[in-house]
Amino acid sequence: MGSPCWAGCRAIGPVPIAAPCPAPARHGKRGRVTQPANLAAIVLAAGKGTRMKSALHKVLHPLAGRPMLMHLLDSLAALGPARVVTVVGSGRDQLERALAGRDVSLAVQEPQLGTGHAVQQAEAALAGFDGTVLILYGDAPLVSSATMARLAARLDADDRPAVAVLGFRPADPGAYGRIIATPDGRIEKMVEHKDASPAERAVTLCNSGLMAVRAADLFALLARVGNDNAAGEYYLPDIVMLATADGRACAVIETDADEVAGVNSRGELAAMEARWQQARRARAMADGVTLVAPETVWFSHDTQLGRDVVIEPHVVFGTGVEVADGAVIRAFSHLEGASVGPGAEIGPYARLRPGTVLGRGVKIGNFVEVKKARLGDGAKANHLSYLGDAEIGAGANVGAGTITCNYDGFLKHRTQIGAGAFIGSNSALVAPVAIGDGAIVAAGSVVTADVPADALALGRAGQTVKPGWAARFRTMMAARRAS
Amino acid sequence: MGSPCWAGCRAIGPVPIAAPCPAPARHGKRGRVTQPANLAAIVLAAGKGTRMKSALHKVLHPLAGRPMLMHLLDSLAALGPARVVTVVGSGRDQLERALAGRDVSLAVQEPQLGTGHAVQQAEAALAGFDGTVLILYGDAPLVSSATMARLAARLDADDRPAVAVLGFRPADPGAYGRIIATPDGRIEKMVEHKDASPAERAVTLCNSGLMAVRAADLFALLARVGNDNAAGEYYLPDIVMLATADGRACAVIETDADEVAGVNSRGELAAMEARWQQARRARAMADGVTLVAPETVWFSHDTQLGRDVVIEPHVVFGTGVEVADGAVIRAFSHLEGASVGPGAEIGPYARLRPGTVLGRGVKIGNFVEVKKARLGDGAKANHLSYLGDAEIGAGANVGAGTITCNYDGFLKHRTQIGAGAFIGSNSALVAPVAIGDGAIVAAGSVVTADVPADALALGRAGQTVKPGWAARFRTMMAARRAS
Amino acid sequence: MGSPCWAGCRAIGPVPIAAPCPAPARHGKRGRVTQPANLAAIVLAAGKGTRMKSALHKVLHPLAGRPMLMHLLDSLAALGPARVVTVVGSGRDQLERALAGRDVSLAVQEPQLGTGHAVQQAEAALAGFDGTVLILYGDAPLVSSATMARLAARLDADDRPAVAVLGFRPADPGAYGRIIATPDGRIEKMVEHKDASPAERAVTLCNSGLMAVRAADLFALLARVGNDNAAGEYYLPDIVMLATADGRACAVIETDADEVAGVNSRGELAAMEARWQQARRARAMADGVTLVAPETVWFSHDTQLGRDVVIEPHVVFGTGVEVADGAVIRAFSHLEGASVGPGAEIGPYARLRPGTVLGRGVKIGNFVEVKKARLGDGAKANHLSYLGDAEIGAGANVGAGTITCNYDGFLKHRTQIGAGAFIGSNSALVAPVAIGDGAIVAAGSVVTADVPADALALGRAGQTVKPGWAARFRTMMAARRAS
Repeated sequence: MGSPCWAGCRAIGPVPIAAPCPAPARHGKRGRVTQPANLAAIVLAAGKGTRMKSALHKVLHPLAGRPMLMHLLDSLAALGPARVVTVVGSGRDQLERALAGRDVSLAVQEPQLGTGHAVQQAEAALAGFDGTVLILYGDAPLVSSATMARLAARLDADDRPAVAVLGFRPADPGAYGRIIATPDGRIEKMVEHKDASPAERAVTLCNSGLMAVRAADLFALLARVGNDNAAGEYYLPDIVMLATADGRACAVIETDADEVAGVNSRGELAAMEARWQQARRARAMADGVTLVAPETVWFSHDTQLGRDVVIEPHVVFGTGVEVADGAVIRAFSHLEGASVGPGAEIGPYARLRPGTVLGRGVKIGNFVEVKKARLGDGAKANHLSYLGDAEIGAGANVGAGTITCNYDGFLKHRTQIGAGAFIGSNSALVAPVAIGDGAIVAAGSVVTADVPADALALGRAGQTVKPGWAARFRTMMAARRAS
Repeated sequence: MGSPCWAGCRAIGPVPIAAPCPAPARHGKRGRVTQPANLAAIVLAAGKGTRMKSALHKVLHPLAGRPMLMHLLDSLAALGPARVVTVVGSGRDQLERALAGRDVSLAVQEPQLGTGHAVQQAEAALAGFDGTVLILYGDAPLVSSATMARLAARLDADDRPAVAVLGFRPADPGAYGRIIATPDGRIEKMVEHKDASPAERAVTLCNSGLMAVRAADLFALLARVGNDNAAGEYYLPDIVMLATADGRACAVIETDADEVAGVNSRGELAAMEARWQQARRARAMADGVTLVAPETVWFSHDTQLGRDVVIEPHVVFGTGVEVADGAVIRAFSHLEGASVGPGAEIGPYARLRPGTVLGRGVKIGNFVEVKKARLGDGAKANHLSYLGDAEIGAGANVGAGTITCNYDGFLKHRTQIGAGAFIGSNSALVAPVAIGDGAIVAAGSVVTADVPADALALGRAGQTVKPGWAARFRTMMAARRAS
Repeated sequence: MGSPCWAGCRAIGPVPIAAPCPAPARHGKRGRVTQPANLAAIVLAAGKGTRMKSALHKVLHPLAGRPMLMHLLDSLAALGPARVVTVVGSGRDQLERALAGRDVSLAVQEPQLGTGHAVQQAEAALAGFDGTVLILYGDAPLVSSATMARLAARLDADDRPAVAVLGFRPADPGAYGRIIATPDGRIEKMVEHKDASPAERAVTLCNSGLMAVRAADLFALLARVGNDNAAGEYYLPDIVMLATADGRACAVIETDADEVAGVNSRGELAAMEARWQQARRARAMADGVTLVAPETVWFSHDTQLGRDVVIEPHVVFGTGVEVADGAVIRAFSHLEGASVGPGAEIGPYARLRPGTVLGRGVKIGNFVEVKKARLGDGAKANHLSYLGDAEIGAGANVGAGTITCNYDGFLKHRTQIGAGAFIGSNSALVAPVAIGDGAIVAAGSVVTADVPADALALGRAGQTVKPGWAARFRTMMAARRAS
């Protein structure tokens, strides 16, 4: 593949996935994950997120320019689930808005009595569903489609486990719950860190909380979970011990710790963002993009880059950017919702905003903002300009300090600049206005009416000179200052 | 607290400090350090700082936007010392200017005959003072108020030590002097690395040089220190051995190595700045600020940030910035001396300079500079503008390329823009000038006289067109080029 | 020296080099490397570079703003070689263009049958040469002049080896070929990793591929190398075993792993760039430059910085920049081909382009672009300006939004601004034009004709006001919106 697998691929048991590595699926391209039949998912998002100290629901905090929850839901969507239920506590309104238009139902957990209780809130929404249920977490957004599929498929193995649990081996197992399992992945015991013996604490396999369970088993087992513990909560992992006590097999499969990492604070979110960016940069370089200073470049989840694209230090990609082969993005540039043509040169200090479409070899220079504007092949705007709501023909040259005056306080109007036109520096083009092909606008002009092709337009005052005035002014000011 | 304690809090002996961690005190807020009674301090700043290769005195090199020495003096000031003496060698003039207005006296060490000799130069300035003297170092600026108080208070413990020394355990003890002490912190021996036995070198507790001594003891002991060594210098730590030889107790308390780190080169200064920034970023995130790319954001010592503030990559905060709740600081922004209102959106590429005061929901966009200007709630200046010495009313819209012409070469003049006014793009407002509420300035205008409320002002030439001129010009130029 | 030696200096055997550390030579200054007599070099650059995924030849990808190959050729040039031959496979045209004007001959390897075969292609170009041949690699660009000289000189030691090989000890020897040698550096065996015994794999001394061989030996030995191996290739290291079998000595000298690092992917190139930048930043700080945030500043191979220069976070230096003592480069600045005078203040957000020459104390502020322009001492252009093809006198003040209109679509014209002149904000200076000493240009003017010294020039329309127009406009627009 060439691209690094940063999510890890260590599997126990059969892996019925075509893709050798979950990374492509996670990045939303080239995924070849086998869709499990009859799958549903419950996404837990009812935690208070207190440590975020935010009015924004934790799972809506963005990662790589997209809310955490959407990363997870998109990975899930690749599996074609029959139903998806998100369990929410506070912040329900925010989630409803964020999920508008998605085929995801909301279940409310109120009060919040533990993870087992949270999953139970989804029972009504899954009424009549008899397939496999994945249990996921809205604040653990990087679980790949492939891992989800692998977890679900584990239920179908010959030993027909009641529950399949996703385990991981963190660098520091710390206070995670441990999974005591046989070498072939049969769970003997799941134990909270505080209840674990020294020998159990020495086990490095930890419980991520992610599970696959048949719907029929899930709610039957949950109904038997008690809350006889210090917090008085119903714990989801207890279903594993209940099933085991019934003499049924439960299985664990492993994945990389980074894939199941959760976010509980803005610091953890920043750390996850950093890991995501590092992986994305590595993939860009492996795919043939030069990053002079990779750690200073920030991508979005959907950035698309051609071959032999060169990106200088200190560049930020917002969402919706596509850069064609051989384009150069110079230092301090900021791109959002823009399409950059082959061999174009952008920046330094160029800001491309949504709706920017640049043809082949276009040059956008320093301190130039472009918004909802198309520039034809070879057009140039090299200095200190604002081009908004504009159509600019091939080979046109927009001089320094040019402003398209596109807004009258109420409506936005369009500016058209013809192919090969030359806009003199410091001109204001008052839209709606059209400059014809090959026309010239004199420097410093205010253009308020259309200019025919091949014409010259002037809109500037004549120059007058007052000899000696400056000398007299200086004398006067100096005298005033002295007095 | 939520905020990490990066200065460390490992104490030996009693800690009569209310604050559990020195970080808040160091950051200048919420400090609850008990002020010791009758405290003085000697700050040594007489080193030549040769490795800095700088014309600027070493202790005046800034850290987080403030000279190193001022960090230390501010932490000291929180303890309400009766007297503070700074001992200086070369660069006395620079220190005098930097300390102007502060209640700090200067003592000059000339020639420079060692740390013991340096402390002796402060004797005159401390004449009549009979309390506890802290000995600090101007190039070790991060010692917290709490640690200072803890060191001073150590003298008051039951064992009544003659000297309390601040020790630390660096990752690599290397060539530091070692402190040989009992487990409860009684010093048995202090030994230079070069004189230490292998067993002594295996000790990891090192001498930071910081001490607390009663004034009466300090100068009496120093008078007995000799200079019978290779360098012919008088060493301050020798007072510990003299007191011990007298049968008096000397004590060590410990702190974190980062807290007592010193700066001897610009590389070490940059490393200290990096640690400071890392701690500040962690605190911001813990307090509810989103940092998309923490390592690309640079704060000043006094930056204040509200909750749910979002800061994009590549942002620099100069001194004196306050950002209210929910404001967004977009990429590549630079703020100094500015107050940003709730929910305001700044940048990308916004430069806020001192005297900027922005109301609720104000938008300052790309390539916009604001200086000594107030913008009312909801006002906008989104593109390529310079707003200096201006008062801009609520809801006003300042178009792209607007310039307040505030300087006539001698004086600065003010521009007033009324509430709801609309300034067309590429306008020049020649101050002093006032645009009334709700007025409109036509794009490309030069405004030299006041505009009444609700009026339209135009100050631009009419447009003329010369048909075919551009085509003829091109033909002529092509011919000239060919010839 | 003060500057860190990041290339490493561990030598086996005599080191007849004056410089104690290769770093100065690598950085192109102060090199004092003894030039070996009668030296030639073969630079192998025939690899396909497949992993780069680039249309650009691998050895032409830039490092610190200069193609990798040029770093190597410049280090080589310091030794005054009699002949240099580069062996190229595909991409010959690119190399020919890149090497135009250099005294380097090209030999083509087609097809590519191994490193031994590649060296043989240089035989014709070295016909008649009877000195020492260095064998280097175009994708291992950081080998210093001193190391090259040391390797060549090894042939002249008393044991008169047939081949001198450059070895290194990587952190992870991994799959590198091992060199089995006596403690004094006599090679007993060179063995590919795959053929090595466990004992041989435990050896940490690895083969960099770099060699020195007398020309007479080189091609005689190569003629005896066979291709009886899986790949059917002729391997250069086989000459060591052939010489050894002849009873001749072969020697290894060591250098640091970073110095012989090769580039096979854009990721490895970025990693090498990062190491180069880190070393360069450390050298700048050691030389007396303040870097507030070293890891955010990017230098070029030829950046020159004076003492007490201060560089704020996020600054990029292109090639050809020289900054004099005491200048301040503020955040987000971008400099290329510019000379910055003593005490000048640049940025934030200043872009200096090639041909910029700034005098003492010049100020270039935010969103200002300067190109092919000289500014005299104390001149200022603080805001949102474009100064191209201009000569600006001492003490001149260029107001915000000033544009030099230097291009008519065919030719560039020059603008002259006299000493002490004052250019009002938002002015357009239509070149060719000259503003006299002490003249004033009124804000918002378009200046199309020369302005005498001490005169005032105006080129703007008078202001007209239409009372109540804005109120009526708003009413009309609101009505239209409602309908």
